[in-house]
Amino acid sequence: MSDMPIPAAAVPSSAVLTDPACPLCQTPGGRVLVQTAEFRVVWPDEPGHPGLLRVIGQAHVAEMTDLRPDERLRMIDAVWTVEAVMRRVLGPDKINLASLGNWVPHLHWHVVPRWKGDLQFPGSIWSVQQAGREASVAAIHNLIRGRLEQLFDEVVRAFGRA
Amino acid sequence: MSDMPIPAAAVPSSAVLTDPACPLCQTPGGRVLVQTAEFRVVWPDEPGHPGLLRVIGQAHVAEMTDLRPDERLRMIDAVWTVEAVMRRVLGPDKINLASLGNWVPHLHWHVVPRWKGDLQFPGSIWSVQQAGREASVAAIHNLIRGRLEQLFDEVVRAFGRA
Repeated sequence: MSDMPIPAAAVPSSAVLTDPACPLCQTPGGRVLVQTAEFRVVWPDEPGHPGLLRVIGQAHVAEMTDLRPDERLRMIDAVWTVEAVMRRVLGPDKINLASLGNWVPHLHWHVVPRWKGDLQFPGSIWSVQQAGREASVAAIHNLIRGRLEQLFDEVVRAFGRA
Repeated sequence: MSDMPIPAAAVPSSAVLTDPACPLCQTPGGRVLVQTAEFRVVWPDEPGHPGLLRVIGQAHVAEMTDLRPDERLRMIDAVWTVEAVMRRVLGPDKINLASLGNWVPHLHWHVVPRWKGDLQFPGSIWSVQQAGREASVAAIHNLIRGRLEQLFDEVVRAFGRA
């Protein structure tokens, strides 16, 4: 997504770090759509939010500022790429981006398509669920499920590995 | 925070957009620590999270991918700068970053220092509060309040306007 050249990492300083107790070191965390030395894009089939994708760092580091600037830039650029494809394919009312990691302190970005009638809108996806959303949630999930393969294809294509 | 040159915007394409009904167009949204043509860093004195800072875009656009790549890069670079200062001054257990905008669809990043004993940890700051956290929350707020002026000073300094 950037129009600036992004230098390749000379030495993948952080990519060698792993933690045997970390689920994101030990498992992919979902269906892997894109895989690089530094990050992967996965579809975790998140309950309640089937359109959610994650950009997960390959290294076991907790914070964006634990990455070298060039690593950090490539990872957030992946987030923008996923956001752009998600907007084009799913057309949500809003995109939510978050790097929390309180449960699993291994860098991962949630890229979440949101709709006004979804489970928690306008709350976060970690907020209490709204009552009476059954019909709108069903319609949203229907829309998402019908476009998932296109979403996956276009994400893969956007990262240049068709 | 980036080690790459960031080109200045030739034309501030999005910075002219405002919405008369938007609170982040019409009010600063907190004590303004840093102000540029493209974003501001504010301390909103968020209830329950007095260390939270926000990086707010000056333009009324909803998504990071609504910004030009160079604008987007400068804004996220501001988030990294705030994160780095916050880690150094406050020493939290975790940093949470989020751009949601479901209530106010005007780009703003929450940069949140988190502690294991805070109100919702390991939940998000939008999750239900944990019971029995009175003592730890008081201690955390004490620590934060004692370092707020240093935090503000160092944020200002990090953006090169001492």
